Amino acid sequence: MTGAAISSDRAESGGFRSVAAETGQPEGEAFPVHGPADVAAACAAAEAAFDIYRATGREERAAFLERIADEIMGIGDGLIVAAMRESGLPRARLEGERGRTTGQLRLFANVVRAGAWLGLRIDPALPDRQPLPRPDIRLRMIPLGPVAVFGASNFPLAFSTAGGDTASALAAGCPVVVKGHPAHPETGALVAAAIARAVAASGLPEGVFSHLVGPGNDLGAALVQDPRIAAVGFTGSRGGGLALMKLAQARPVPIPVYAEMSSINPVLLLPEALKARGQALGQAFVGSLTMGAGQFCTNPGLILAIEGEGLDAFVAAATEGVGGADAQVMLTTGIHDAFEKGTAALASNGSVETLARGREGNGCTRGQAALFQTTASAFLADKALGHEVFGASSIIVRCRDEAELRTVLAGLEGQLTATLHMDAADEAIASRLLPLLERKVGRILANGWPTGVEVCHAMVHGGPFPATSDARTTSVGSLAIDRFLRPVSYQNLAQALLPAELGDAAAGDGVPRLVDGVLTTG
Amino acid sequence: MTGAAISSDRAESGGFRSVAAETGQPEGEAFPVHGPADVAAACAAAEAAFDIYRATGREERAAFLERIADEIMGIGDGLIVAAMRESGLPRARLEGERGRTTGQLRLFANVVRAGAWLGLRIDPALPDRQPLPRPDIRLRMIPLGPVAVFGASNFPLAFSTAGGDTASALAAGCPVVVKGHPAHPETGALVAAAIARAVAASGLPEGVFSHLVGPGNDLGAALVQDPRIAAVGFTGSRGGGLALMKLAQARPVPIPVYAEMSSINPVLLLPEALKARGQALGQAFVGSLTMGAGQFCTNPGLILAIEGEGLDAFVAAATEGVGGADAQVMLTTGIHDAFEKGTAALASNGSVETLARGREGNGCTRGQAALFQTTASAFLADKALGHEVFGASSIIVRCRDEAELRTVLAGLEGQLTATLHMDAADEAIASRLLPLLERKVGRILANGWPTGVEVCHAMVHGGPFPATSDARTTSVGSLAIDRFLRPVSYQNLAQALLPAELGDAAAGDGVPRLVDGVLTTG
Repeated sequence: MTGAAISSDRAESGGFRSVAAETGQPEGEAFPVHGPADVAAACAAAEAAFDIYRATGREERAAFLERIADEIMGIGDGLIVAAMRESGLPRARLEGERGRTTGQLRLFANVVRAGAWLGLRIDPALPDRQPLPRPDIRLRMIPLGPVAVFGASNFPLAFSTAGGDTASALAAGCPVVVKGHPAHPETGALVAAAIARAVAASGLPEGVFSHLVGPGNDLGAALVQDPRIAAVGFTGSRGGGLALMKLAQARPVPIPVYAEMSSINPVLLLPEALKARGQALGQAFVGSLTMGAGQFCTNPGLILAIEGEGLDAFVAAATEGVGGADAQVMLTTGIHDAFEKGTAALASNGSVETLARGREGNGCTRGQAALFQTTASAFLADKALGHEVFGASSIIVRCRDEAELRTVLAGLEGQLTATLHMDAADEAIASRLLPLLERKVGRILANGWPTGVEVCHAMVHGGPFPATSDARTTSVGSLAIDRFLRPVSYQNLAQALLPAELGDAAAGDGVPRLVDGVLTTG
Repeated sequence: MTGAAISSDRAESGGFRSVAAETGQPEGEAFPVHGPADVAAACAAAEAAFDIYRATGREERAAFLERIADEIMGIGDGLIVAAMRESGLPRARLEGERGRTTGQLRLFANVVRAGAWLGLRIDPALPDRQPLPRPDIRLRMIPLGPVAVFGASNFPLAFSTAGGDTASALAAGCPVVVKGHPAHPETGALVAAAIARAVAASGLPEGVFSHLVGPGNDLGAALVQDPRIAAVGFTGSRGGGLALMKLAQARPVPIPVYAEMSSINPVLLLPEALKARGQALGQAFVGSLTMGAGQFCTNPGLILAIEGEGLDAFVAAATEGVGGADAQVMLTTGIHDAFEKGTAALASNGSVETLARGREGNGCTRGQAALFQTTASAFLADKALGHEVFGASSIIVRCRDEAELRTVLAGLEGQLTATLHMDAADEAIASRLLPLLERKVGRILANGWPTGVEVCHAMVHGGPFPATSDARTTSVGSLAIDRFLRPVSYQNLAQALLPAELGDAAAGDGVPRLVDGVLTTG
């Protein structure tokens, strides 16, 4: 059923069924459960493919990425229909997500062509230098090796089989072994087959891409522990990410884990903006909170503001909006259960006021949006109030003054984003808060909402622990390619032995090079 | 006694004495033993200094680094004399090392000025894009936070108090807390005082730099566990590095550890080169092996070659050279003891032939160079033969043919360097081996010796585990600054709130920027 080395007859017996998000019932076809032998076969194939794949030229590799995008579009509407059934997400959202998925493959194709990721540096020999001559030293980035990618439940396309981790790892020259998310095996299988067609059409070895599926955690653990895996990309829960980090560190050869885990994405309503448009902000907030049943890593789960009339207007509008929000199908029954548990814990907390719950829905997996309110002192006293509740749940923390707002911010864990709603007259307070926000998050935005992550060059979808396991990187945008590269330097190698892009003949090819410390753009 | 927040009256009672390397006896002055309260004070001062220090302009920060270099030179000959006594290294080497230390501070000053490390990226807004407008998104790198640096025993200047880790962390905008190596407390104190003078002269907060000393491991453990420390730089033993990695991962908030640990630096004598100049290679090898009593991370501890006349000539010359090598004072009695133990284990191994030991010396810390020989099959059968023996010890592994040489290489752990001695006629075999070497090491060099690490832009002093804890980086050269940075993006922020270098007014300032995916050099 999968891209490369895995044939279903090697899979363990039994199999598992695709579940419809709306009903929570197995409705789709049965898929094989891959086991240790499949992991070993996929990793062996990836290892065998690595030297061939990493030797591909930039144009060849870029065309391969574009071919994957074409093949995904070539699946046609069946992909959208499968993803709708398995995720419960609406058509428009999934069509948009498919566009994002193919768009980021094409973005990485252009990144590969441009070649800046090679990080070329040349320090020419200085034969007459005193007291010692300097040898000729040249540096380039090379790919780390086969990468394990874990598909995410909440983006069955853009953060899954052919998602950002896969695209950036392939762009870097790393073969990929995907552990597909069990919530969307059919969607995953369709995309994996599209990638396999692109691999074949590009004349690449099958092991460049493999796709493994199964319902439990053992499969992923075996994959991370396989000695041929050189790095891990993961988007999911904090518990899952921490478990992978632990496994990766305990290996005889530890490997990097890029886990995007947990974030409540504080939104700061600054005083003048709140005064000018508290009601409008409250209405807009509900749109961001409830979009996609709130199942975004960047969902605004925490609102921070200073007491005042504007805040009352915000709260009134947000309460009304959440109260009128329709229940929405969540991704899985497990996610729905966790959402129910998380909102129930907040509702029963004596320091927390339940402002609104959304409308009730039919069926076992529909989540009702939830809005809570508490004081800064209560929030500071109870760490549990700052834990992520995955879904459309948010808590408003009312602060007495700027100092208290600052104390709340300082106590927060690392986050993916922080948002400022502000007017020009708020610039003074904003500039006082910015240094603190920079230390807490990967992206700071003004007068927008954190949901909706642009796939571009300047995007950081990352942030200090526990937002991610590694704040030095991003999992969205072109900078994500750097996660899968490492530098090698070549000293006094003959031109014939140097990698082509480091040879003298390559000068002027348009790839940036740092030559004796001076950046040239070709 | 130290840079910033540590006064000796806060240090624990007792103190420890500086030991002369040659005699192994405490001859120098007594130094306080810093304890947990000193760690806390240093980290609090570093944290308090961080936002001020990271806000320094590029010119201001560059001038500060240059001032440190000036202050180190200003210490005068007393620094060399202290380092000679404490390390046992000769004057010429230490004068050279001082030049390297100040040279890399000046290199980083110029790196800071050039600003490429800021990684600026600007994706301008696309208000008319369909179906959704694109916001304005801008990215820069910011420093991680206070960095703990562990001084190395074998470079009392260039890898210690003001060494490469300190220089690159300060360049990135991170305050530094050094845990000085107890083998050279006086050298460390002199340099720390020089840095403190530079801090004061530059009008920076004292907490930008602190220096802690003590003889045990508790001090370093407390430092790595302090919640204010954001990253760790370490050069030393594998055991030490692994212990720090474990502590860093077990923190509530894990942090990156850049540990440079263990490498035996394979040197491959390719057939034609060996045939043409086996004897000359053998002589030159002994020079690299015995330099500085072999106490380099890049010491050539493993020679790989295919059987033949050339190899016999190499072995004969190397045996003669090692046999005539004078015993040299090693850095500490502990290092000398470990060297004796390591060479004794090789000598008593039934599969290993002792080719030569250097001359005996007087005194308890003089190491006698050692040269061993074994077969590829014996080497493959006994992992212990591939362990690093820190000091002037090397083992020649005789291979039957290229296939066996390849098998030995494939079985090696990660290394800092691999060296090819080759003639033009060896290019075919070299190009077959290069992909394998790239996966094993951080630097590949031809027709030289791995000792002598150039401090430049294209240098990689790093490599796959266990050569280092993180192959994605280097601890020598200007790329080392990247270890202490992480990206932050700013979405739709008003010009007044953007970091200066990301504002529209900064365009044309000579700092490279990726604007909408196109690299501009200012």
